[in-house]
Amino acid sequence: MGVMPEIPFDVLEQSINKRVIVSLVGRREYRGTLLGFDKPHMNLVLKDAEEITESGERKIVSAVIRGAAIEYVSP
Amino acid sequence: MGVMPEIPFDVLEQSINKRVIVSLVGRREYRGTLLGFDKPHMNLVLKDAEEITESGERKIVSAVIRGAAIEYVSP
Amino acid sequence: MGVMPEIPFDVLEQSINKRVIVSLVGRREYRGTLLGFDKPHMNLVLKDAEEITESGERKIVSAVIRGAAIEYVSP
Amino acid sequence: MGVMPEIPFDVLEQSINKRVIVSLVGRREYRGTLLGFDKPHMNLVLKDAEEITESGERKIVSAVIRGAAIEYVSP
Amino acid sequence: MGVMPEIPFDVLEQSINKRVIVSLVGRREYRGTLLGFDKPHMNLVLKDAEEITESGERKIVSAVIRGAAIEYVSP
Amino acid sequence: MGVMPEIPFDVLEQSINKRVIVSLVGRREYRGTLLGFDKPHMNLVLKDAEEITESGERKIVSAVIRGAAIEYVSP
Amino acid sequence: MGVMPEIPFDVLEQSINKRVIVSLVGRREYRGTLLGFDKPHMNLVLKDAEEITESGERKIVSAVIRGAAIEYVSP
Repeated sequence: MGVMPEIPFDVLEQSINKRVIVSLVGRREYRGTLLGFDKPHMNLVLKDAEEITESGERKIVSAVIRGAAIEYVSP
Repeated sequence: MGVMPEIPFDVLEQSINKRVIVSLVGRREYRGTLLGFDKPHMNLVLKDAEEITESGERKIVSAVIRGAAIEYVSP
Repeated sequence: MGVMPEIPFDVLEQSINKRVIVSLVGRREYRGTLLGFDKPHMNLVLKDAEEITESGERKIVSAVIRGAAIEYVSP
Repeated sequence: MGVMPEIPFDVLEQSINKRVIVSLVGRREYRGTLLGFDKPHMNLVLKDAEEITESGERKIVSAVIRGAAIEYVSP
Repeated sequence: MGVMPEIPFDVLEQSINKRVIVSLVGRREYRGTLLGFDKPHMNLVLKDAEEITESGERKIVSAVIRGAAIEYVSP
Repeated sequence: MGVMPEIPFDVLEQSINKRVIVSLVGRREYRGTLLGFDKPHMNLVLKDAEEITESGERKIVSAVIRGAAIEYVSP
Repeated sequence: MGVMPEIPFDVLEQSINKRVIVSLVGRREYRGTLLGFDKPHMNLVLKDAEEITESGERKIVSAVIRGAAIEYVSP
């Protein structure tokens, strides 16, 4: 293997204070700065976020997103 | 990193007695004053709330919202 | 903060023997007197209830509602 | 409060050998005699039951219904 | 009460080697001989089964059905 | 009873290196050689598989299928 | 049996730093290099990925995919 595998929560750890895309099971998407998360639920805190749905966008100053609703987080 | 990460439940803690938006998996939305919550379920207590659905709004004096139904909480 | 936060199950405790609205994930709604509940599942016992769906109402003398089906309980 | 709250599983206990309505998340409904249940899953045993769906009724001599599929049980 | 309540898993125990109907959450139905099950998941083993869907029937020599997909089992 | 009941995971054990049909909750179906599984999640490893959906078939050299998505496994 | 069964997480272990297809419950698909995963949730880290939906493709530099949203992983 030679390369250390990257654990999902380590990748989130390295993404703190960086912009991420959060894609939800129900097809909504959020783009914002990742302020923190918890284990093992993967609840996230986003800041300066935009919510993107089929019907448009809206600004969200900050949000606690429940891990159970998340499909993927893209750093 | 330099900045302490913000844990989701700490953000909720700081939002107590403030207005929040609660967005549910089934696309309903509630706006109200956050009175409290529990861990790890993220059940919430809202006061002076409005329920917003595709078919309109209605007033809700108070509500216990089950965490499992929540997509995000926006302080 | 100054004001004690209200825990979801305490709010349910204070609602015992009072009228509540129970809104389910599948958009059905029940109105009735809350006789009791359990933790952590939030299964509820309602008495003298009405079931309200898109196709009308019906009377329900009493019902045990599973917590997993509940979106919110409004005292 | 003055009146003892009624715990959901106690209400089921008192309904044993009596007729109940079991309403499922997927809108099917069963009417039958409750023979027993288990905790905490709320799996039920019904006897002499009828299954009622949008497409009609059918007789079911007995059935083990999984708690996870249940929305409410009405004694 | 006078009559002993029947526990769901006891009823399944008594149905081993007998024909049962297994109705799934997604409206598919299986009829076959119950060879065994496990607790608490209620995974089942069926033999000489038929799968019945809206689009017809097909024979299944044997199947392990996941409990999480089951709505009811009718002995 | 006379005949030993067959436990679901034993049936899977006996199906290792044999062809199985895996039917998923979302109506997709896989046919392939079962290489292994884990307990209690029922995650499966399939080899030389075909994915069959409403829109056709495709070959899959191997796949780890999550147990939570499985409706039944037919040996 | 003669051949050692292959455990799902071992197959993922052997796929680290290789291209995989990740098929989600909601019919989205990702193709990318598997950087790591965790147990028992099966959260994955993908790099140099493409998201493929009915409405087209898009590039994703990296993503943490939640195990609960995954249907299968094909090495």
